[in-house]
Amino acid sequence: MSGLMSTDLFRQPLRGIIPPVITPLSDRDTLDRAALERVLEHMLAGGVKGLFVLGTTGEGPSLSYRLRREVIEMACKVVNHRVPVLVGITDTAFVESVSVAKAAADAGAEAVVLAPPYYLPEGQPELRDYLDHLLPELPLPLFLYNMPSLTKVSYEFDIVKWAMQQPRIVGMKDSSGNMGYFNRLLELRSQRPDWTMVTGPEELLAETVLLGGHGGVNGGANVFPKLYVNLHAAAEAGDLKRTRELHSLVIALASRLYSIGRHSSAVIKGIKCAASCLGLAGDFMAEPFRRFREPERKIVQAAVAELQAALGPLAK
Amino acid sequence: MSGLMSTDLFRQPLRGIIPPVITPLSDRDTLDRAALERVLEHMLAGGVKGLFVLGTTGEGPSLSYRLRREVIEMACKVVNHRVPVLVGITDTAFVESVSVAKAAADAGAEAVVLAPPYYLPEGQPELRDYLDHLLPELPLPLFLYNMPSLTKVSYEFDIVKWAMQQPRIVGMKDSSGNMGYFNRLLELRSQRPDWTMVTGPEELLAETVLLGGHGGVNGGANVFPKLYVNLHAAAEAGDLKRTRELHSLVIALASRLYSIGRHSSAVIKGIKCAASCLGLAGDFMAEPFRRFREPERKIVQAAVAELQAALGPLAK
Amino acid sequence: MSGLMSTDLFRQPLRGIIPPVITPLSDRDTLDRAALERVLEHMLAGGVKGLFVLGTTGEGPSLSYRLRREVIEMACKVVNHRVPVLVGITDTAFVESVSVAKAAADAGAEAVVLAPPYYLPEGQPELRDYLDHLLPELPLPLFLYNMPSLTKVSYEFDIVKWAMQQPRIVGMKDSSGNMGYFNRLLELRSQRPDWTMVTGPEELLAETVLLGGHGGVNGGANVFPKLYVNLHAAAEAGDLKRTRELHSLVIALASRLYSIGRHSSAVIKGIKCAASCLGLAGDFMAEPFRRFREPERKIVQAAVAELQAALGPLAK
Amino acid sequence: MSGLMSTDLFRQPLRGIIPPVITPLSDRDTLDRAALERVLEHMLAGGVKGLFVLGTTGEGPSLSYRLRREVIEMACKVVNHRVPVLVGITDTAFVESVSVAKAAADAGAEAVVLAPPYYLPEGQPELRDYLDHLLPELPLPLFLYNMPSLTKVSYEFDIVKWAMQQPRIVGMKDSSGNMGYFNRLLELRSQRPDWTMVTGPEELLAETVLLGGHGGVNGGANVFPKLYVNLHAAAEAGDLKRTRELHSLVIALASRLYSIGRHSSAVIKGIKCAASCLGLAGDFMAEPFRRFREPERKIVQAAVAELQAALGPLAK
Repeated sequence: MSGLMSTDLFRQPLRGIIPPVITPLSDRDTLDRAALERVLEHMLAGGVKGLFVLGTTGEGPSLSYRLRREVIEMACKVVNHRVPVLVGITDTAFVESVSVAKAAADAGAEAVVLAPPYYLPEGQPELRDYLDHLLPELPLPLFLYNMPSLTKVSYEFDIVKWAMQQPRIVGMKDSSGNMGYFNRLLELRSQRPDWTMVTGPEELLAETVLLGGHGGVNGGANVFPKLYVNLHAAAEAGDLKRTRELHSLVIALASRLYSIGRHSSAVIKGIKCAASCLGLAGDFMAEPFRRFREPERKIVQAAVAELQAALGPLAK
Repeated sequence: MSGLMSTDLFRQPLRGIIPPVITPLSDRDTLDRAALERVLEHMLAGGVKGLFVLGTTGEGPSLSYRLRREVIEMACKVVNHRVPVLVGITDTAFVESVSVAKAAADAGAEAVVLAPPYYLPEGQPELRDYLDHLLPELPLPLFLYNMPSLTKVSYEFDIVKWAMQQPRIVGMKDSSGNMGYFNRLLELRSQRPDWTMVTGPEELLAETVLLGGHGGVNGGANVFPKLYVNLHAAAEAGDLKRTRELHSLVIALASRLYSIGRHSSAVIKGIKCAASCLGLAGDFMAEPFRRFREPERKIVQAAVAELQAALGPLAK
Repeated sequence: MSGLMSTDLFRQPLRGIIPPVITPLSDRDTLDRAALERVLEHMLAGGVKGLFVLGTTGEGPSLSYRLRREVIEMACKVVNHRVPVLVGITDTAFVESVSVAKAAADAGAEAVVLAPPYYLPEGQPELRDYLDHLLPELPLPLFLYNMPSLTKVSYEFDIVKWAMQQPRIVGMKDSSGNMGYFNRLLELRSQRPDWTMVTGPEELLAETVLLGGHGGVNGGANVFPKLYVNLHAAAEAGDLKRTRELHSLVIALASRLYSIGRHSSAVIKGIKCAASCLGLAGDFMAEPFRRFREPERKIVQAAVAELQAALGPLAK
Repeated sequence: MSGLMSTDLFRQPLRGIIPPVITPLSDRDTLDRAALERVLEHMLAGGVKGLFVLGTTGEGPSLSYRLRREVIEMACKVVNHRVPVLVGITDTAFVESVSVAKAAADAGAEAVVLAPPYYLPEGQPELRDYLDHLLPELPLPLFLYNMPSLTKVSYEFDIVKWAMQQPRIVGMKDSSGNMGYFNRLLELRSQRPDWTMVTGPEELLAETVLLGGHGGVNGGANVFPKLYVNLHAAAEAGDLKRTRELHSLVIALASRLYSIGRHSSAVIKGIKCAASCLGLAGDFMAEPFRRFREPERKIVQAAVAELQAALGPLAK
């Protein structure tokens, strides 16, 4: 699949797993380019249907703008349109979001992804005006990214209904964890048949797809992409037995890898540490975060080994 | 099914719909006994598998202790062991919880239901000690009720693992809306095969049951019990097509009835108002809440009519 | 000062220290009557201008209704109108608040104190209706108690303006810690010259009184009443030097006694433990809370000794 | 006062009013340079003792990095060391904070100001490491900016004690509104006599200074600098009567100007609109925010006129 045209690409919902790509770093401002390539190829080999760079898991907000551009260029070059590359452009400054979006278009990315500006919380009418002003400046289709625990502001129901009337907005990644909200939005599918609805938290992937959602932007897919790809396929096919089996494995993974330490960055640390245990990439994190120390790393190492055993061929 | 013994009753998980029963009131301290009977019979006719009185939907905390006892006695008398009656005993005062639990046992209820004390938030070790001290005082089996948005304190993962080792604690109603939490707990089923896991928010009933949960404590079942009973049955049977259809109707109902007004009591007001539109019970609410006024009532009335049309025979 | 008439009592703001009285317990449902008497006499000897029973510090919501009545009766008998006794009637159930208020009037208390019902949060219009319905049922003047961190609901600005037009509502204890809110309300004094504005957090007593507030409902006054009484006097007299000295001691006390342990009940535990170190009362706490264990108690003991040395005659 | 050396400048606490400077904009990426000069001269004429650019009030996070540099250069040029210029460098990306700090040093600013990175919340140990790594990269002395409602993360007590041991960290602006926290920190003055403690919310300026704090970073001083400068002087001199008078005016201003509309940007909108009513600068705001519309503007206009009358010569 090469030479994708963005305008054609999102005529159907994007179905499947679209991992939020970790950003391998040698130090706070140096991309480990070889590692990024390894991680991307690992996920492509696992069957993912898209790749989302510079999201929360990708430590987007912690990276310098120079480095963000390098990530975009490198990812687009490696992926080379085998699947769509989605680029996070969330920022507190309108002008900087546009600037990253342009870099994404220049590099050949297929879409951009935007959570609400997240310093001072804006009202919903202001958020709508903001989107309305931003859309004409964006050279690529836009996915909304709902992440109220980090942005303070949610894309509330009415604003999503408005967004569904904008052809350039093509879907949403919902990381609220609020399936009541997700389910309610899913009911609006008929009004916008090409609209993509995907979920962030991997514990919710099974139910999302069973009830008609299109897929997941699940961090664990950096490490074990086949697990998520196969769970998605089972749920989409309505194979409840297989769905429950693989869902149990995802829950086990999340329980083991994402709850080490008390801080909310624990998920990213767990993913980066697991990727490091597998030799995919180092686990350096940009400030203000730091990698797990030895005791936590040992817990992750043991968990990864057990998960490999449980996953069998899905662990490759 | 008469003469249920509590000790036998919960040897298997309680599967199905266990509505949180509204409390029909003539005024702030007067139970509308005829209406309570009508509501209970309506739900029993709809196929519910249990009835939960004095929960959040039942306005338990707003009622005098005298009135709470009257509700318990009336409900147990009407239901007469056709299905288990579960009684909310959540309170800030240990002694009052025990006292209501004894009234429940005296009246013939089958179990009690307890959310954490909710004025000053306690720590998890304190919550465990509290349960440990409370259990020997309770004459009936206990369901945990997880409702962190109202109680401030959650039954966190470790405390539920501890609870699963207490034979007198037989299950949990989770109203957190957090399916990640729910799914993680569900994975512990094998350790305690008789443990019941049911969900509060009706928007989550379908996915709960598809992934192995046992049922729902869903307020909308006061009004349209057959909708929820049939959705539960479809999901339990793995009939994905029917599950999606009925799930859509539940979402439509929740969207229409529970989001009128800005306050968090909107769900109870919507249920009571809809029940009143159907002639089941008046919609008076104990202070500090008040029934919908005429404009809101008209919205509910229109929604109920549309839902009746959409539900067809399930609306009876 | 005997034979106070409630109607006359609050023609002027209540100025000074009105401690929230701890409830000494022998076990979860047994009042330590001798200890309660000791604590009350200790504070009266220290110069307090009122006594508030069954507040947050008094563990009101954790006590059985029977025990709450015993506390009210005992406190009124011991105090015998030497200063006004204020009784907490906060409850989720309207009828129970009225019932406790009647017990307070029967026992000879001078006023009642009410925070908003705190299970399901009500809207401001509902809260106003609630007060409007409650006022005619109350046999005593009412103080509002603003405590949003525990009740979820605040007495917002407009509702306080409305309350200032109700002659039976005579003042407010603000425990929000929000001096912006407090200062804004203080500016309304001219509209209601008899309205009392007192602060809960003792760290804010000095500034409250310097800027025109009337006093404090400060838990530390159970232990060292003279410290608070003298700080109040210095600030009221505009003696900035002495105010700063005593304020520093209050901050030292709060830093040492109220931050042991991670839970929000730490303040009450610290006060009860310090009272116990001084031999005033035992430190048993009603469930779901528990007294400090030996290591924490040793920290309190050391702090109390240091504070006694620093306070000199004010420690008596 | 020209040719200030940063190393000498902060040997004493910075006492007085240090307004957070608004950023006058012609459009989303165009600085209104003449207006910025007018606003700065207006405040200098009013007697302010420092100027803080690119804070919350200055819409720092909403501005492009190019524009931020322009603001820094313009402010430093206009102020020309008459008072210290403090530059906000808060950012989610370490590298970008350093880059803005270097621009500040190059332009001749005297210090930088930093709130914690604010997308994904970091733990306190991570925050300390972050500061520890950042300090050697900063060419100017650093003020901490505590703003937990926007950054999610607070500089907790222990980290401030650590900061007080770093000679390059010279003080704190606390915008938490939590005077308990502020008062506790103020007690540590003796350990670090040169440490500056100033408050953000202007409703707290009087009490801050009465109890030993050094001043305020108060947005209203963009509009009426003399009011704040005189209030500071009265409180510092211990003139309680004058302090209370001017404090009442500040409360009146805040009540009238900062509570229009429901959103948390209301304070900045009120300040910019009032500045516009006075002809100091336009009220355009960078997305995602927008200026008040005509009805809100009329309310501000009326309030400004009344305040001018009440302030008399202090309104100049």
